Amino acid sequence: MSSDQFSAACVDMAHRLADASGEIILSHFRKNISVDTKLDDSPVTVADRDSESKMREMIASAFPDHGIIGEEHGSHRPDAEWVWVLDPIDGTKSFINGVPLFGTLIALMHKGVPWLGCINHAALNQRWIGGAGHATTLNGKPCHVRACKDLKSATIYATAPGYMTSEESAAFERLSKAVYHQRYGGTDCFHYAMVASGWTDIACERVSQLHDFAPLAPVIENAGGIVTDWTGQPLTQASSGHVLAMGDRTLHTVALKTLGWSQPVS
Amino acid sequence: MSSDQFSAACVDMAHRLADASGEIILSHFRKNISVDTKLDDSPVTVADRDSESKMREMIASAFPDHGIIGEEHGSHRPDAEWVWVLDPIDGTKSFINGVPLFGTLIALMHKGVPWLGCINHAALNQRWIGGAGHATTLNGKPCHVRACKDLKSATIYATAPGYMTSEESAAFERLSKAVYHQRYGGTDCFHYAMVASGWTDIACERVSQLHDFAPLAPVIENAGGIVTDWTGQPLTQASSGHVLAMGDRTLHTVALKTLGWSQPVS
Repeated sequence: MSSDQFSAACVDMAHRLADASGEIILSHFRKNISVDTKLDDSPVTVADRDSESKMREMIASAFPDHGIIGEEHGSHRPDAEWVWVLDPIDGTKSFINGVPLFGTLIALMHKGVPWLGCINHAALNQRWIGGAGHATTLNGKPCHVRACKDLKSATIYATAPGYMTSEESAAFERLSKAVYHQRYGGTDCFHYAMVASGWTDIACERVSQLHDFAPLAPVIENAGGIVTDWTGQPLTQASSGHVLAMGDRTLHTVALKTLGWSQPVS
Repeated sequence: MSSDQFSAACVDMAHRLADASGEIILSHFRKNISVDTKLDDSPVTVADRDSESKMREMIASAFPDHGIIGEEHGSHRPDAEWVWVLDPIDGTKSFINGVPLFGTLIALMHKGVPWLGCINHAALNQRWIGGAGHATTLNGKPCHVRACKDLKSATIYATAPGYMTSEESAAFERLSKAVYHQRYGGTDCFHYAMVASGWTDIACERVSQLHDFAPLAPVIENAGGIVTDWTGQPLTQASSGHVLAMGDRTLHTVALKTLGWSQPVS
């Protein structure tokens, strides 16, 4: 298989994973679904578990030598050259309350670096996919970030207050106070899709795990934007989960400086 | 016109207002739209203004003796027996950032008391309508609140922190700490639609004006729930804007007691 063929096969797989997971998830959406609580106190449902299981089967069948890291069912060959990273429902709390902004996050990493990303909002029927040598598309049509001339014209999105450390909150507040509007939403990943499509300017978060951020850079950077951690480093398998995603690359340096983040020594 | 005919004509008008406003609003959604800032520092666009203008024309033509109170274009005969209350875009900040949860709020009041309500989420293609002697429907099909056995099983939604007085925040926190999940969303009115459809349990807010809350009681109470202010009184034209909307009516007394709200003497 040529590298072009491999790339096309991976993009096709991402679409098929999104189709299959979306079908399972929507069959449970706004139904009377039982909710379990995980060890970290977050909710999980049969929709999370079954859609991840289905995606894992499809990957194992098409790419038996690839690794898989999933939110619900753990890691399989996480040190492989190519590893798929799966978050079947990012925003399970939204999902169980009928809010249609939850999304499915799918990434393919090469040697620990995100290479292909998909953000699939099944209930909105909107799918962003980018990377693997392809410009980012929304439902098959090219999408682009928007320009933003300065921080005081920018809108910044985050999920919710109250889950950050005091050092993280202080950094976030330095940035959020420098912008035009700071908004909270109900769920993580839609904010990043908004940046990729040029509907908003900045998404800034501290997320907890690889599956929460792995697809973001391929989707946003191939739409013209930039995604780094809060120190300006690219997001990799080893990243801390501090995400700064921006549509306008030229503002990135000033946003980093405003955040003024230095990882506390633990 | 018999009272049944009048009621049917009003419901039909609410649908036509939602159709017409939705068409105008969606023609501007996710486009490069110019944003103005109002005196209260909130954003407004041509989509807000034009959709309200269109609705006002339609009402004046069909019901020339009815009053109109609108967010963008003020009051016309606000002391009439029948008064339409219009919020063309509740969630303008969401609208201008591409978030599809903004809604159009339409109410018809009789002698200052909300009698018919419509919550129209044009970008989601979901319309709730209830009152005027009709059970609440979502896109034409009956919808119902869900039961909730106690506060510690309940999920509560609010728009965002940081806009309440310290007394309001203290009351809100008493309630939000007593429930299972407390969630913030990006916009007001979708939370109330979620309660009407039994997707979540409680929406609790301090909103600012009549147009923010006028349709809520007709929509939620005709789906089996209850909507009052924080002291348990029905919401009327004279209300303060402290809204407690609950799907399970039997929990209302305990929720009020937990809020422990008494309007400060101003």
